[in-house]
Amino acid sequence: MDEQRPYSGCGILNWSKKLRKCKLKNKLLCRLNTDRLRYALCVMIPVHYCASLRLLLTSNFLFYSSSFTKLPHLAGTEQNLLLAKQIQGQWKEFGLDSAELVHYDVLLSYPNEKQPNYISVIDDQGNEIFNTSLFEPPPHGYENVTDILPPYNAFSAQGMPEADLVYVNYGRTEDFFKLEREMGINCTGKIVIARYGKIFRGNKVKNAILAGAQGIILYSDPADYCAPGVDAYPDGWNLPGGGAQRGNVLNLNGAGDPLTPGYPAKEYTFRYKINEGVGIPKIPVHPIGYHDAEVLLRAMGGPAAPDSSWKGRLNVPYNIGPGFAGNSSTRKVRMHVHANNKITRIYNVIGILRGSVEPDRYIILGGHRDAWVFGGIDPTTGAAVLQEVVRSFGKMKMEGWRPKRTIIFASWDAEEFGLLGSTEWAEENARVLQERAVAYINSDSSIEGNYTLRVDCTPLLYKLVYNLTKEILSPDEGYESKSLYESWLEKDPASENNSYPRINKLGSGSDFEAYFQRLGIASGRVRYTKNRKADKFSNYPVYHTVYETFELVEKFYDPTFRKHLTIIIPFDCRDYGEALKDYSNRIYKLAKKHEEQLKLYTVSFGDHVSSLCEISVSISHRPITVRIMNDQLMFIERAFIDPLGLPGRKFYRHVIFAPSSHNKYAGESFPGIYDALFDIESKVDQHEAWEEVKRQISIAAFTVQAAAGTLKEVA
Amino acid sequence: MDEQRPYSGCGILNWSKKLRKCKLKNKLLCRLNTDRLRYALCVMIPVHYCASLRLLLTSNFLFYSSSFTKLPHLAGTEQNLLLAKQIQGQWKEFGLDSAELVHYDVLLSYPNEKQPNYISVIDDQGNEIFNTSLFEPPPHGYENVTDILPPYNAFSAQGMPEADLVYVNYGRTEDFFKLEREMGINCTGKIVIARYGKIFRGNKVKNAILAGAQGIILYSDPADYCAPGVDAYPDGWNLPGGGAQRGNVLNLNGAGDPLTPGYPAKEYTFRYKINEGVGIPKIPVHPIGYHDAEVLLRAMGGPAAPDSSWKGRLNVPYNIGPGFAGNSSTRKVRMHVHANNKITRIYNVIGILRGSVEPDRYIILGGHRDAWVFGGIDPTTGAAVLQEVVRSFGKMKMEGWRPKRTIIFASWDAEEFGLLGSTEWAEENARVLQERAVAYINSDSSIEGNYTLRVDCTPLLYKLVYNLTKEILSPDEGYESKSLYESWLEKDPASENNSYPRINKLGSGSDFEAYFQRLGIASGRVRYTKNRKADKFSNYPVYHTVYETFELVEKFYDPTFRKHLTIIIPFDCRDYGEALKDYSNRIYKLAKKHEEQLKLYTVSFGDHVSSLCEISVSISHRPITVRIMNDQLMFIERAFIDPLGLPGRKFYRHVIFAPSSHNKYAGESFPGIYDALFDIESKVDQHEAWEEVKRQISIAAFTVQAAAGTLKEVA
Repeated sequence: MDEQRPYSGCGILNWSKKLRKCKLKNKLLCRLNTDRLRYALCVMIPVHYCASLRLLLTSNFLFYSSSFTKLPHLAGTEQNLLLAKQIQGQWKEFGLDSAELVHYDVLLSYPNEKQPNYISVIDDQGNEIFNTSLFEPPPHGYENVTDILPPYNAFSAQGMPEADLVYVNYGRTEDFFKLEREMGINCTGKIVIARYGKIFRGNKVKNAILAGAQGIILYSDPADYCAPGVDAYPDGWNLPGGGAQRGNVLNLNGAGDPLTPGYPAKEYTFRYKINEGVGIPKIPVHPIGYHDAEVLLRAMGGPAAPDSSWKGRLNVPYNIGPGFAGNSSTRKVRMHVHANNKITRIYNVIGILRGSVEPDRYIILGGHRDAWVFGGIDPTTGAAVLQEVVRSFGKMKMEGWRPKRTIIFASWDAEEFGLLGSTEWAEENARVLQERAVAYINSDSSIEGNYTLRVDCTPLLYKLVYNLTKEILSPDEGYESKSLYESWLEKDPASENNSYPRINKLGSGSDFEAYFQRLGIASGRVRYTKNRKADKFSNYPVYHTVYETFELVEKFYDPTFRKHLTIIIPFDCRDYGEALKDYSNRIYKLAKKHEEQLKLYTVSFGDHVSSLCEISVSISHRPITVRIMNDQLMFIERAFIDPLGLPGRKFYRHVIFAPSSHNKYAGESFPGIYDALFDIESKVDQHEAWEEVKRQISIAAFTVQAAAGTLKEVA
Repeated sequence: MDEQRPYSGCGILNWSKKLRKCKLKNKLLCRLNTDRLRYALCVMIPVHYCASLRLLLTSNFLFYSSSFTKLPHLAGTEQNLLLAKQIQGQWKEFGLDSAELVHYDVLLSYPNEKQPNYISVIDDQGNEIFNTSLFEPPPHGYENVTDILPPYNAFSAQGMPEADLVYVNYGRTEDFFKLEREMGINCTGKIVIARYGKIFRGNKVKNAILAGAQGIILYSDPADYCAPGVDAYPDGWNLPGGGAQRGNVLNLNGAGDPLTPGYPAKEYTFRYKINEGVGIPKIPVHPIGYHDAEVLLRAMGGPAAPDSSWKGRLNVPYNIGPGFAGNSSTRKVRMHVHANNKITRIYNVIGILRGSVEPDRYIILGGHRDAWVFGGIDPTTGAAVLQEVVRSFGKMKMEGWRPKRTIIFASWDAEEFGLLGSTEWAEENARVLQERAVAYINSDSSIEGNYTLRVDCTPLLYKLVYNLTKEILSPDEGYESKSLYESWLEKDPASENNSYPRINKLGSGSDFEAYFQRLGIASGRVRYTKNRKADKFSNYPVYHTVYETFELVEKFYDPTFRKHLTIIIPFDCRDYGEALKDYSNRIYKLAKKHEEQLKLYTVSFGDHVSSLCEISVSISHRPITVRIMNDQLMFIERAFIDPLGLPGRKFYRHVIFAPSSHNKYAGESFPGIYDALFDIESKVDQHEAWEEVKRQISIAAFTVQAAAGTLKEVA
C-alpha cells in the first residue's frame, strides 16, 4: 500500500467546485418526477452528505484524528468519558440544537490488574516451561502512556484449564466438520487453538464450545496479518510479532447489553445475573501474537494440517495427523485467564439538528468513539468524519440553513464490547424510531485500506450510492479526472454483473446492527478498503492492537486525508426487487442441491419475488401526498421485520437479511431458509428438517408479499 | 326484561334533528384548538359515527336482522359463504369503493355426522343407564330447518373416557384451588363437570387439563342461565332445559388459526400438524343443558358443595363432601365425543371507502358474520348495525361526500372458532395496519340486555365516548328527554368515582383482539347490556343455543330496534395517564399484600405513571403539522406494544392490557406484573418468583416511559 501521491493544494478547490455542481444536481434530483419513482426517493434523504461536503476540510480530519488518538479511550474509562464531554462541547459549539450525554449501565469486561492472563506450556512434570507475553511492546512515542490494557478477549470466562491442544485452523464451522468428520478428532475436554481471520471471533468461540473444548486460544498468523513485502509497524503497516488482537467474544445475536436483552440498561431496568447473561462464553479465551504462537506451537510439536489449506505461514512444522491431542507429546497447555465482568457506566453523545419541515423524520448518523487502545483506525477514521460532518452542518445552520428533516448525530460508546451503546439507545427509543427514522448511516472506521470504495447497504440505497459516486472525483492515483464511480467500478465490479460496482449485504460487527437487523431502518456504511482480490490478509494487519496509532494512518493509509472525504450516502425500491430476485435465485440453487429431498418432502419455492418494483404510486404535489408517499418508502424496510424474529435469534428480525450464523461479520440473505438448509443432510430427523425448510420458505414468501403490499395507497 | 314500551313514530324524527345538531357540534370539535389537546384528537376520527346516524333507519335493522337469521350460517358452510356474497353485493350497491371476499384456510371443528356426541351414566355392570340428548328441541317455526348442528364444543379432543365424576363449580382457578387445597380432592384421571358462566369456557378446559382430568362436561345451570320470574323461550327469554351452549374451547392466546400462528392461513402458508396446533385441548369436552345435567347429577348422587357459593339452582341434592369421586356411588360417567378438526375455507368481506385527504389512514369497523346457529343476537344485532352503517356511509358518498380518512368495513368469518377471520386478516395486513390504522371499532352483538350502555375501550377513547353520549338521546324508558350519558351514568356509575359512567377494560372474546392486544391499535366496542347489579345470570340466557332467533330479539330485547342505533365512537391521551395511575395503584395494592417479601427481595415499584398527560404539543395550522401531531396520537397505543410479548403469550403484546390469564373475556391491567404476583405464595422458588415480579415491573416502567416519549416532537 504505497500508493501515496503528492497532495495538490488545489484539490479542495476542485472538490468545492464539483460539489457545488453536485449540490445543484441534487436539488434537481429532489424535485418530484411523476414518472420516475426513484427521483422522488431522493426526497427521503433530507440533506445529502454532499450538500455539506464543500465545507469539509482535510485539516480538520487531521486535527480530530490526532486529538482523539492521543490516549487510550476504552469504554467505561474516565478517558472515554472525557472524550465524550469534549465531543459534546464541540457539537454545541458547532451549532447543533442540542448535544446530550446519554448513559447506560452495561456489562463490560476487563483484565484483572493483579492476575495477568497468559498461556503456558506444561511439561510432563507439571512445570511451566514457556509462558506467553503479558503485554505488547508499546510503539515508539507511546512508551510512557499508562492505561494501555494488555491484549485480552472481553467476556472470556475465568479459568485455568490444562489439557491437550488441538489446532482448529480458523475455527469455522467447516473446520470443525473437517476435524470431526474427516480427521476423526474429538475436541471434547481439549484446549483448541484457532487462527484469527475469516470469521468473527465470537463464532470461533461458539464453535469451540459446541465441540466440547475447555478453552480456546486465538492467535494472529502472518498468513492473515502480514502482507508480503511489507515491513512490520513502525517501518510498515504489517502486524509485529508481539502484537495481539483484542476483541469481545460474545454471541449476543443482537441483544445488546447481555444482562438487559430487549430493554435499555437504565437504573430502573431488571438485570439478569451474569451467569444468565446472553452470549457470554462459558470457557476461557485468550489472544496471542505470532511470536508467542510460534513458540507455543513448536513446543507442542507443531499442528496437524489435513491439507495445505490449513497451513498458516508460521515457521513451525506441520504434521499431517490427528492434531496435538493425539500425537506423542506428553506436554499440555495451561490457560490463565482472570478477566472480570463488571457493570459499568457508558456514555453516548447524542446531537440533534432539528428539521425545518418534518422535524419528526430522522436521519441518524452514528459511529463509535470507544477504542481498544488508541483507535488510530478503529474508530477514529470514522469518528473524525462524523465530527467534521457535524461541524459543517453546524456551520450551515449558523448561516440560516436547516435540513428538511431532523438529523441525529451519535457518538456511540462500548461498540467494542458488543455494540452496546448503539443497541441500548435503539432499545430505549425503539417506539419513536420505528415510526420516524428514515435512515441510519454508520460511520465506523472509514478506512481499512486505500485501494477503492466499499459500501454495505440496503438495496433501497443502491441507486443513490451509484448516482452520488458519479458526482464525486476519484481520490485514487491514476484516476485524477475520473469519478469515484468509475474507479470503483473498474477496481471492484459486482462479480455477477460487471456493469455495476460491488455493493455488499449488511451483516453485523458495527453499530448499524440494531437499526437495520432489529428495527428495519434502511441502513448503510461506507469505507475505503483494500484490494479484495490481491490482498489476502484479514481486516488490516494491526487491527485492535496497540499499533493502531494516528501515525499509522498518517504514514501509511491516508496521508492526505482525502479518502476520509469520500463518504457519501442515499432510496430506490426497485433495487429491492432486483436484489430479492437475486437472493431468491441463490437460495433456490442451494436447495436444488437436494433435488431428491425437495421431491420427497414436497418442498416448493413459491414466487417470492413479488412485484415490489412494479407498483405504481401516483404522485401529486400537495405536501400531504408527498408525506404519504415518503411514509410508504420509509416503511418498506420496516415491512421486512418479523416481530417473531429468526429461529433462536429473536433480536434478528429482518426476514431478508441477517448476520450469518457462522460469521457475524457477514450478511446472509433469506437467513431463515439458509439456516434451515445448512448441513441438512446430517440432521437426524430428515422429515422434521425439511418441514422447517418449508416453514421458512412460507415465512419469506409471506413477508415479501406483505412488504410489497405496503406500497399500495389503500389496503 | 319486560321494559318494553310503545314505539312512537316520531322517534326517528327526534333522533334525526338531534343528530343534525350533533353533527354541527362535532364539526366544531374537529377544529384544532391550540389549548386543548383533546379537541385536536377529534381529528383522529375521520367521521364520527353520528355524522351518519341521521341516515340510520330502524326499518333497515329489522330487514337485515331477519334476512341474516333465516338459516344457520356457521363458519365454513355454504350458507355462510352465500351470506358473505350477499353482503358483498349489498356493500357494492351501497356505494363503497370496493368490497372483496378475502379467504383463509383455517382449522375448524365439526361434530361427526355419523357418531353423535353424548354423555352416559354407567352402572356397576357397565351398562349405559342414561344418555344425554343428541340435539336441542328446535324452536317453533324452525322445525324443518336442516343443517342445525347439535350442541358441541369446537376443537374438543375425540375420546370415550370413562371415569368417576367430580363437580368443579365454574371450573375457575380458584375453584380448583378450593378442591385441591381445601377439600383434598384430586382430579387426576377423573371426568369433571363444570357449570358455564363467570369465565371463558376455554379457561375451564385448560384448568381441568392442568388438574389432570380425562374429560370435562360443561352445563348451563339455571342459576346462571335463568332470570327469576321469566319464562323459558319462546314464552320468555330464559334458557329452556333442552338448550345447551355451543362454543370453542381453544386456548389460543391470540394466535388465530391454530395451525398458522403469526402468519395468515393462505395457500402458501406452512401449517403445523393438528397435534402441534396452538391451544387445542387434549381431552374431550361436551356441553349439556340443565335437564340432562339434573338427571346426570342425580344419577351420580348429587355433587359436593363445600359451601353455598358452589350450589347452583338445579333440583339435585348437594353433599358437603369430597365430590362424586370419593363418594359411595359405584357408577361412572362415559363421554362420547367424536368431533373432527378440519381445514376449511372461510371468507371475510372487506369493504373500502377511500378517504379524501389521508387515504393512508384507516378506521376499521368490523364484526363477525358467522353464527353457531341462527345468530339472532350473536352476531346479527351487531352485523345489522354494521350493514346499516355501511348503507348510510354509502349514501353520503353517492351524494358527493367522502370521509377524510379511509374507512375499512369488515364482515369477519369464523369468530366463533377463535376469532379466526379477523386474526388472519390482521396477520396478513400487519405491516400496513401498524403504520396506518387509527382505530378499530368492533361490532359484535350490540345487545346482551336492554338496561343500559356498556362500553369497553382504550382510555384514549374515554372522553369522546363521554362527549358523544352527551349528544345522543337516551333510548331508555323514563329518560325520554335525557341524554344517553345521563341514563348511563345513573344506571352504571364507575364504582370508584360516581361522576363518570363505567367504562371497562378490553379483554378478548371478540374480533378486536388481534387489533388491540397484538397490534396496539386503539380499539373499542359498545353494546346495550343488562343490569350488572340486579341481573346475576351469565351472558344472556339463550347465548349460543338454537333459541337465538330473530323473534327472540324482536319480542324481548329491542322491539323498536332503537337500541341498535345507540352505537357511537371516539381519543384523549390524558385519560391514559389517569387510567395508568389507577391501574398502577391497583397493582401496587396487590403487591402490598406481600409487604414482607417486598422488603426481603428488594422489590420496588418505580414511578410508572409518567406524565403522559403533561406533555405539551405545539400545534400550528399547516396541514403537515396536523399530520405530525396525529401520527403521534395514533402511535401512542402502538407504543405500548412490546414485540417480545407477555410471558408464554407471545401474541399478547400490549404491556398495559391483556385478556386475563384466568378468563379470556376479562381484561387485566399490567398483566405481566399481575401474573407474576398471582398465587406467588405457593411458588416453590420464592427468590426466582420475586425476581420475575421485578423484571415485570421494570418492563412496565420502561414501556410507560417509552410511550410518553413518543409524544415529543424530536427524540
